[in-house]
Amino acid sequence: MNRPPLKREPRADTRRVILEAGIRSVLRKGYDQAGLAEILREAGVPKGSFYYYFASKEDFGLQLIEHWLEHYNEAEASLRDETLAPMTRVRRFFEARCRLFKRLKREYGTVVGMILLEMATHNETFRCRVEKVLAAWQEQLTGCLVAAQRAGELDPKRDARTLAEFCLISWEGAVQRARTTQNTAPLDLFFRVVFESFLVK
Amino acid sequence: MNRPPLKREPRADTRRVILEAGIRSVLRKGYDQAGLAEILREAGVPKGSFYYYFASKEDFGLQLIEHWLEHYNEAEASLRDETLAPMTRVRRFFEARCRLFKRLKREYGTVVGMILLEMATHNETFRCRVEKVLAAWQEQLTGCLVAAQRAGELDPKRDARTLAEFCLISWEGAVQRARTTQNTAPLDLFFRVVFESFLVK
Repeated sequence: MNRPPLKREPRADTRRVILEAGIRSVLRKGYDQAGLAEILREAGVPKGSFYYYFASKEDFGLQLIEHWLEHYNEAEASLRDETLAPMTRVRRFFEARCRLFKRLKREYGTVVGMILLEMATHNETFRCRVEKVLAAWQEQLTGCLVAAQRAGELDPKRDARTLAEFCLISWEGAVQRARTTQNTAPLDLFFRVVFESFLVK
Repeated sequence: MNRPPLKREPRADTRRVILEAGIRSVLRKGYDQAGLAEILREAGVPKGSFYYYFASKEDFGLQLIEHWLEHYNEAEASLRDETLAPMTRVRRFFEARCRLFKRLKREYGTVVGMILLEMATHNETFRCRVEKVLAAWQEQLTGCLVAAQRAGELDPKRDARTLAEFCLISWEGAVQRARTTQNTAPLDLFFRVVFESFLVK
Protein backbone atom coordinates (compact mmCIF):
# COMPACT_ATOMS: atom_id res chain seq x y z
CA MET A 1 0.00 0.00 0.00
CA ASN A 2 1.31 3.43 -0.89
CA ARG A 3 1.72 5.98 1.82
CA PRO A 4 -1.41 8.16 1.88
CA PRO A 5 -0.87 11.74 0.74
CA LEU A 6 -0.40 14.33 3.48
CA LYS A 7 -3.78 15.73 4.44
CA ARG A 8 -2.45 19.25 4.46
CA GLU A 9 0.82 20.95 3.64
CA PRO A 10 2.62 21.78 6.93
CA ARG A 11 2.85 25.50 7.59
CA ALA A 12 6.02 27.01 6.17
CA ASP A 13 7.18 27.97 9.65
CA THR A 14 6.24 24.71 11.44
CA ARG A 15 9.82 23.49 11.51
CA ARG A 16 10.96 26.76 13.07
CA VAL A 17 8.09 26.73 15.59
CA ILE A 18 9.06 23.20 16.69
CA LEU A 19 12.73 24.14 16.96
CA GLU A 20 11.98 27.23 19.04
CA ALA A 21 9.74 25.18 21.36
CA GLY A 22 12.55 22.62 21.49
CA ILE A 23 15.08 25.25 22.55
CA ARG A 24 12.78 26.41 25.37
CA SER A 25 12.21 22.84 26.50
CA VAL A 26 15.92 21.97 26.42
CA LEU A 27 16.55 25.18 28.36
CA ARG A 28 14.14 24.11 31.10
CA LYS A 29 15.10 20.45 31.32
CA GLY A 30 18.26 19.69 29.37
CA TYR A 31 18.28 17.68 26.17
CA ASP A 32 17.99 14.23 27.73
CA GLN A 33 14.92 15.15 29.78
CA ALA A 34 13.20 17.25 27.12
CA GLY A 35 10.22 15.20 25.90
CA LEU A 36 8.88 15.33 22.37
CA ALA A 37 5.25 15.29 23.60
CA GLU A 38 5.81 18.44 25.62
CA ILE A 39 7.69 20.17 22.81
CA LEU A 40 4.90 19.40 20.33
CA ARG A 41 2.20 20.51 22.77
CA GLU A 42 4.00 23.82 23.27
CA ALA A 43 4.55 24.22 19.54
CA GLY A 44 0.88 23.36 18.96
CA VAL A 45 1.60 20.80 16.22
CA PRO A 46 0.62 17.12 15.90
CA LYS A 47 3.20 14.34 16.23
CA GLY A 48 3.03 13.61 12.50
CA SER A 49 4.38 17.06 11.77
CA PHE A 50 7.40 16.32 13.93
CA TYR A 51 8.33 13.25 11.91
CA TYR A 52 7.71 15.15 8.69
CA TYR A 53 10.71 17.34 9.58
CA PHE A 54 12.84 15.21 11.90
CA ALA A 55 13.87 11.59 11.48
CA SER A 56 14.46 11.03 15.21
CA LYS A 57 15.15 12.87 18.45
CA GLU A 58 18.86 12.88 17.61
CA ASP A 59 18.13 14.38 14.20
CA PHE A 60 16.01 16.96 16.02
CA GLY A 61 18.91 17.71 18.39
CA LEU A 62 21.26 18.10 15.45
CA GLN A 63 18.87 20.46 13.68
CA LEU A 64 18.50 22.37 16.95
CA ILE A 65 22.26 22.93 16.82
CA GLU A 66 22.08 23.95 13.13
CA HIS A 67 19.23 26.34 13.91
CA TRP A 68 21.30 27.85 16.69
CA LEU A 69 24.34 28.22 14.46
CA GLU A 70 22.35 30.40 12.05
CA HIS A 71 22.72 33.15 14.65
CA TYR A 72 26.43 33.24 13.82
CA ASN A 73 25.93 33.92 10.10
CA GLU A 74 26.45 37.66 10.44
CA ALA A 75 29.69 37.22 12.38
CA GLU A 76 31.01 34.68 9.87
CA ALA A 77 30.09 36.93 6.94
CA SER A 78 32.22 39.71 8.48
CA LEU A 79 35.28 37.48 8.40
CA ARG A 80 34.77 36.82 4.69
CA ASP A 81 34.05 40.44 3.67
CA GLU A 82 37.00 41.15 1.40
CA THR A 83 35.97 44.79 0.92
CA LEU A 84 37.31 45.43 4.45
CA ALA A 85 40.90 45.55 5.70
CA PRO A 86 41.80 42.23 7.37
CA MET A 87 41.98 43.55 10.95
CA THR A 88 38.67 45.35 10.43
CA ARG A 89 37.14 42.00 9.46
CA VAL A 90 38.48 40.46 12.66
CA ARG A 91 37.12 43.29 14.77
CA ARG A 92 33.71 43.14 13.00
CA PHE A 93 33.58 39.39 13.66
CA PHE A 94 33.89 39.89 17.42
CA GLU A 95 31.62 42.96 17.37
CA ALA A 96 28.92 40.82 15.73
CA ARG A 97 29.49 38.14 18.38
CA CYS A 98 29.09 40.82 21.04
CA ARG A 99 25.75 42.00 19.59
CA LEU A 100 24.65 38.37 19.36
CA PHE A 101 25.51 37.77 23.02
CA LYS A 102 23.37 40.74 24.04
CA ARG A 103 20.47 39.67 21.84
CA LEU A 104 20.52 36.04 22.92
CA LYS A 105 20.81 37.03 26.57
CA ARG A 106 17.63 39.08 26.13
CA GLU A 107 15.82 36.22 24.39
CA TYR A 108 16.93 33.16 26.30
CA GLY A 109 19.12 34.23 29.18
CA THR A 110 22.70 33.17 28.71
CA VAL A 111 22.58 29.41 28.91
CA VAL A 112 21.55 28.06 25.50
CA GLY A 113 25.06 27.92 24.09
CA MET A 114 26.18 26.21 27.29
CA ILE A 115 23.41 23.61 27.07
CA LEU A 116 24.21 22.86 23.43
CA LEU A 117 27.81 22.41 24.54
CA GLU A 118 26.60 20.03 27.24
CA MET A 119 24.67 18.09 24.59
CA ALA A 120 27.90 17.93 22.61
CA THR A 121 29.85 16.42 25.48
CA HIS A 122 27.31 13.59 25.82
CA ASN A 123 26.71 12.74 22.18
CA GLU A 124 29.41 12.06 19.61
CA THR A 125 27.27 13.18 16.63
CA PHE A 126 26.62 16.54 18.31
CA ARG A 127 30.22 16.88 19.46
CA CYS A 128 31.58 16.35 15.94
CA ARG A 129 29.19 18.94 14.54
CA VAL A 130 30.11 21.59 17.14
CA GLU A 131 33.82 20.79 16.82
CA LYS A 132 33.59 21.20 13.03
CA VAL A 133 32.06 24.67 13.42
CA LEU A 134 34.65 25.80 15.96
CA ALA A 135 37.47 24.45 13.75
CA ALA A 136 36.02 26.31 10.74
CA TRP A 137 36.00 29.59 12.69
CA GLN A 138 39.63 28.97 13.62
CA GLU A 139 40.51 28.45 9.95
CA GLN A 140 38.71 31.59 8.80
CA LEU A 141 40.19 33.73 11.55
CA THR A 142 43.67 32.36 10.83
CA GLY A 143 43.22 33.32 7.17
CA CYS A 144 42.26 36.86 8.18
CA LEU A 145 45.27 37.21 10.46
CA VAL A 146 47.64 35.97 7.73
CA ALA A 147 46.10 38.62 5.44
CA ALA A 148 46.59 41.19 8.22
CA GLN A 149 50.26 40.23 8.42
CA ARG A 150 50.65 40.67 4.64
CA ALA A 151 48.89 44.04 4.86
CA GLY A 152 51.29 45.19 7.60
CA GLU A 153 48.53 45.36 10.22
CA LEU A 154 49.96 42.57 12.42
CA ASP A 155 53.47 41.48 13.44
CA PRO A 156 54.44 38.97 10.69
CA LYS A 157 56.78 37.04 13.01
CA ARG A 158 53.93 35.72 15.16
CA ASP A 159 52.12 32.48 14.37
CA ALA A 160 48.71 33.45 12.95
CA ARG A 161 47.10 30.10 13.78
CA THR A 162 48.14 30.28 17.44
CA LEU A 163 46.85 33.85 17.69
CA ALA A 164 43.53 32.90 16.07
CA GLU A 165 42.98 29.91 18.35
CA PHE A 166 43.89 31.89 21.42
CA CYS A 167 41.53 34.75 20.52
CA LEU A 168 38.61 32.36 20.01
CA ILE A 169 39.33 30.59 23.29
CA SER A 170 39.54 33.91 25.12
CA TRP A 171 36.30 35.08 23.56
CA GLU A 172 34.42 31.98 24.74
CA GLY A 173 35.90 32.48 28.20
CA ALA A 174 34.77 36.12 28.20
CA VAL A 175 31.23 35.07 27.27
CA GLN A 176 31.26 32.46 30.02
CA ARG A 177 32.51 35.01 32.56
CA ALA A 178 29.77 37.44 31.51
CA ARG A 179 27.24 34.84 32.68
CA THR A 180 28.24 35.38 36.29
CA THR A 181 29.11 39.08 36.18
CA GLN A 182 25.78 39.64 34.36
CA ASN A 183 27.20 42.52 32.40
CA THR A 184 29.43 42.91 29.36
CA ALA A 185 32.55 43.96 31.31
CA PRO A 186 34.38 40.70 30.38
CA LEU A 187 33.60 41.27 26.68
CA ASP A 188 34.84 44.87 26.92
CA LEU A 189 38.02 43.56 28.55
CA PHE A 190 38.46 41.13 25.64
CA PHE A 191 38.25 43.97 23.10
CA ARG A 192 40.65 46.16 25.07
CA VAL A 193 43.33 43.48 25.48
CA VAL A 194 43.01 41.81 22.07
CA PHE A 195 42.83 44.91 19.90
CA GLU A 196 45.03 47.26 21.93
CA SER A 197 47.84 44.97 22.97
CA PHE A 198 47.54 41.40 21.67
CA LEU A 199 46.83 41.64 17.93
CA VAL A 200 49.25 44.46 17.16
CA LYS A 201 52.11 45.25 14.78
CA MET B 1 8.40 20.32 73.65
CA ASN B 2 12.12 20.04 73.22
CA ARG B 3 13.48 18.47 70.08
CA PRO B 4 14.17 14.78 70.81
CA PRO B 5 17.85 13.83 70.86
CA LEU B 6 19.21 12.30 67.65
CA LYS B 7 18.87 8.53 67.80
CA ARG B 8 22.33 7.98 66.40
CA GLU B 9 25.28 10.10 65.39
CA PRO B 10 25.37 10.30 61.58
CA ARG B 11 28.42 8.72 59.99
CA ALA B 12 31.29 11.15 59.69
CA ASP B 13 31.25 10.88 55.89
CA THR B 14 27.46 11.02 55.41
CA ARG B 15 27.53 14.65 54.30
CA ARG B 16 30.19 13.85 51.70
CA VAL B 17 28.30 10.75 50.50
CA ILE B 18 25.13 12.83 50.01
CA LEU B 19 27.06 15.57 48.19
CA GLU B 20 28.74 13.09 45.84
CA ALA B 21 25.37 11.45 45.10
CA GLY B 22 24.00 14.96 44.54
CA ILE B 23 26.73 15.79 42.03
CA ARG B 24 25.97 12.60 40.08
CA SER B 25 22.25 13.33 40.12
CA VAL B 26 22.71 16.97 39.04
CA LEU B 27 25.02 15.68 36.28
CA ARG B 28 22.29 13.37 34.97
CA LYS B 29 19.33 15.70 35.30
CA GLY B 30 20.40 19.24 36.07
CA TYR B 31 19.82 20.91 39.43
CA ASP B 32 16.14 21.74 38.95
CA GLN B 33 15.19 18.17 38.04
CA ALA B 34 17.45 16.43 40.56
CA GLY B 35 15.14 15.01 43.24
CA LEU B 36 16.13 14.64 46.87
CA ALA B 37 14.45 11.21 47.13
CA GLU B 38 16.66 9.86 44.34
CA ILE B 39 19.79 11.43 45.76
CA LEU B 40 19.14 9.96 49.19
CA ARG B 41 18.33 6.54 47.73
CA GLU B 42 21.61 6.56 45.84
CA ALA B 43 23.50 7.78 48.89
CA GLY B 44 21.76 5.11 50.99
CA VAL B 45 20.78 7.50 53.79
CA PRO B 46 17.37 8.31 55.32
CA LYS B 47 15.67 11.65 54.73
CA GLY B 48 16.34 12.74 58.31
CA SER B 49 20.08 12.62 57.63
CA PHE B 50 19.61 15.04 54.76
CA TYR B 51 17.97 17.65 56.96
CA TYR B 52 20.62 17.12 59.61
CA TYR B 53 23.18 18.54 57.17
CA PHE B 54 21.17 20.72 54.82
CA ALA B 55 18.49 23.26 55.68
CA SER B 56 16.82 23.11 52.25
CA LYS B 57 17.45 22.13 48.65
CA GLU B 58 18.98 25.56 48.03
CA ASP B 59 21.30 25.12 51.00
CA PHE B 60 22.20 21.72 49.54
CA GLY B 61 22.93 23.34 46.15
CA LEU B 62 25.11 25.93 47.83
CA GLN B 63 27.04 23.27 49.75
CA LEU B 64 27.38 21.34 46.49
CA ILE B 65 29.14 24.39 45.08
CA GLU B 66 31.32 24.70 48.21
CA HIS B 67 32.20 21.00 47.99
CA TRP B 68 33.15 21.47 44.36
CA LEU B 69 35.30 24.51 45.15
CA GLU B 70 37.44 22.44 47.52
CA HIS B 71 38.98 20.94 44.38
CA TYR B 72 40.58 24.33 43.74
CA ASN B 73 42.38 24.51 47.09
CA GLU B 74 45.69 23.29 45.70
CA ALA B 75 45.65 25.83 42.85
CA GLU B 76 44.78 28.66 45.23
CA ALA B 77 47.53 27.63 47.66
CA SER B 78 50.07 27.91 44.82
CA LEU B 79 49.13 31.55 44.30
CA ARG B 80 49.78 32.28 47.98
CA ASP B 81 53.07 30.36 48.28
CA GLU B 82 55.49 33.17 49.06
CA THR B 83 58.50 30.85 48.99
CA LEU B 84 58.19 30.88 45.18
CA ALA B 85 59.00 33.67 42.72
CA PRO B 86 55.77 35.46 41.69
CA MET B 87 55.66 34.18 38.09
CA THR B 88 56.35 30.66 39.32
CA ARG B 89 53.30 30.98 41.58
CA VAL B 90 51.21 32.04 38.57
CA ARG B 91 52.46 29.13 36.51
CA ARG B 92 51.87 26.65 39.36
CA PHE B 93 48.30 27.97 39.74
CA PHE B 94 47.48 27.13 36.13
CA GLU B 95 49.43 23.85 36.27
CA ALA B 96 47.30 22.81 39.26
CA ARG B 97 44.17 23.81 37.31
CA CYS B 98 45.40 21.67 34.42
CA ARG B 99 45.87 18.62 36.67
CA LEU B 100 42.45 19.26 38.17
CA PHE B 101 40.85 19.38 34.71
CA LYS B 102 42.37 16.01 33.85
CA ARG B 103 41.32 14.47 37.16
CA LEU B 104 37.76 15.80 37.08
CA LYS B 105 37.37 14.74 33.45
CA ARG B 106 38.29 11.21 34.50
CA GLU B 107 35.87 11.27 37.45
CA TYR B 108 32.86 13.10 36.10
CA GLY B 109 33.42 13.83 32.41
CA THR B 110 33.83 17.52 31.74
CA VAL B 111 30.43 18.96 32.52
CA VAL B 112 30.20 19.48 36.29
CA GLY B 113 31.73 22.95 36.29
CA MET B 114 29.43 23.86 33.41
CA ILE B 115 26.35 22.62 35.26
CA LEU B 116 27.30 24.52 38.41
CA LEU B 117 27.67 27.58 36.20
CA GLU B 118 24.21 26.87 34.80
CA MET B 119 22.86 26.66 38.36
CA ALA B 120 24.51 30.02 38.99
CA THR B 121 22.76 31.67 36.05
CA HIS B 122 19.35 30.57 37.37
CA ASN B 123 19.74 31.30 41.06
CA GLU B 124 20.98 34.58 42.53
CA THR B 125 22.35 32.96 45.73
CA PHE B 126 24.46 30.55 43.67
CA ARG B 127 25.49 33.25 41.22
CA CYS B 128 26.76 35.54 43.99
CA ARG B 129 28.77 32.69 45.51
CA VAL B 130 30.42 31.73 42.20
CA GLU B 131 31.03 35.38 41.31
CA LYS B 132 32.71 35.92 44.69
CA VAL B 133 35.10 33.01 44.08
CA LEU B 134 35.98 34.16 40.58
CA ALA B 135 36.54 37.71 41.83
CA ALA B 136 38.80 36.39 44.62
CA TRP B 137 40.93 34.50 42.10
CA GLN B 138 41.22 37.70 40.08
CA GLU B 139 42.40 39.59 43.17
CA GLN B 140 44.97 36.96 44.11
CA LEU B 141 46.31 36.65 40.59
CA THR B 142 46.50 40.45 40.27
CA GLY B 143 48.54 40.54 43.48
CA CYS B 144 50.94 37.94 42.08
CA LEU B 145 51.39 39.87 38.84
CA VAL B 146 52.09 43.12 40.72
CA ALA B 147 54.74 41.22 42.71
CA ALA B 148 56.11 39.85 39.40
CA GLN B 149 56.40 43.42 38.10
CA ARG B 150 58.29 44.49 41.25
CA ALA B 151 60.56 41.45 40.88
CA GLY B 152 61.37 42.40 37.27
CA GLU B 153 59.62 39.28 35.88
CA LEU B 154 56.87 41.18 34.06
CA ASP B 155 56.68 44.45 32.13
CA PRO B 156 55.81 47.04 34.83
CA LYS B 157 54.04 49.34 32.36
CA ARG B 158 51.18 46.91 31.79
CA ASP B 159 48.05 46.89 33.94
CA ALA B 160 48.32 43.86 36.25
CA ARG B 161 44.57 43.67 36.90
CA THR B 162 43.73 43.63 33.20
CA LEU B 163 46.33 40.93 32.59
CA ALA B 164 45.01 38.82 35.49
CA GLU B 165 41.39 39.07 34.38
CA PHE B 166 42.28 38.28 30.80
CA CYS B 167 44.34 35.22 31.79
CA LEU B 168 41.50 33.82 33.89
CA ILE B 169 38.99 34.41 31.11
CA SER B 170 41.28 32.74 28.58
CA TRP B 171 41.82 29.79 30.90
CA GLU B 172 38.07 29.19 31.27
CA GLY B 173 37.72 29.44 27.50
CA ALA B 174 40.51 26.88 27.03
CA VAL B 175 38.81 24.48 29.43
CA GLN B 176 35.53 24.94 27.59
CA ARG B 177 37.20 24.34 24.23
CA ALA B 178 38.83 21.17 25.58
CA ARG B 179 35.31 19.78 26.10
CA THR B 180 34.77 19.56 22.36
CA THR B 181 38.32 18.75 21.24
CA GLN B 182 38.40 16.05 23.96
CA ASN B 183 42.10 16.54 24.50
CA THR B 184 44.28 19.06 26.31
CA ALA B 185 45.48 20.86 23.16
CA PRO B 186 43.58 24.06 24.12
CA LEU B 187 45.19 24.04 27.58
CA ASP B 188 48.63 23.52 26.04
CA LEU B 189 47.92 26.45 23.73
CA PHE B 190 47.02 28.58 26.77
CA PHE B 191 50.37 27.81 28.44
CA ARG B 192 52.32 28.49 25.27
CA VAL B 193 50.72 31.86 24.56
CA VAL B 194 50.40 33.11 28.13
CA PHE B 195 53.84 32.17 29.41
CA GLU B 196 55.86 32.58 26.21
CA SER B 197 54.39 35.77 24.80
CA PHE B 198 51.66 37.34 26.94
CA LEU B 199 53.01 37.52 30.50
CA VAL B 200 56.53 38.62 29.61
CA LYS B 201 59.02 41.33 30.51
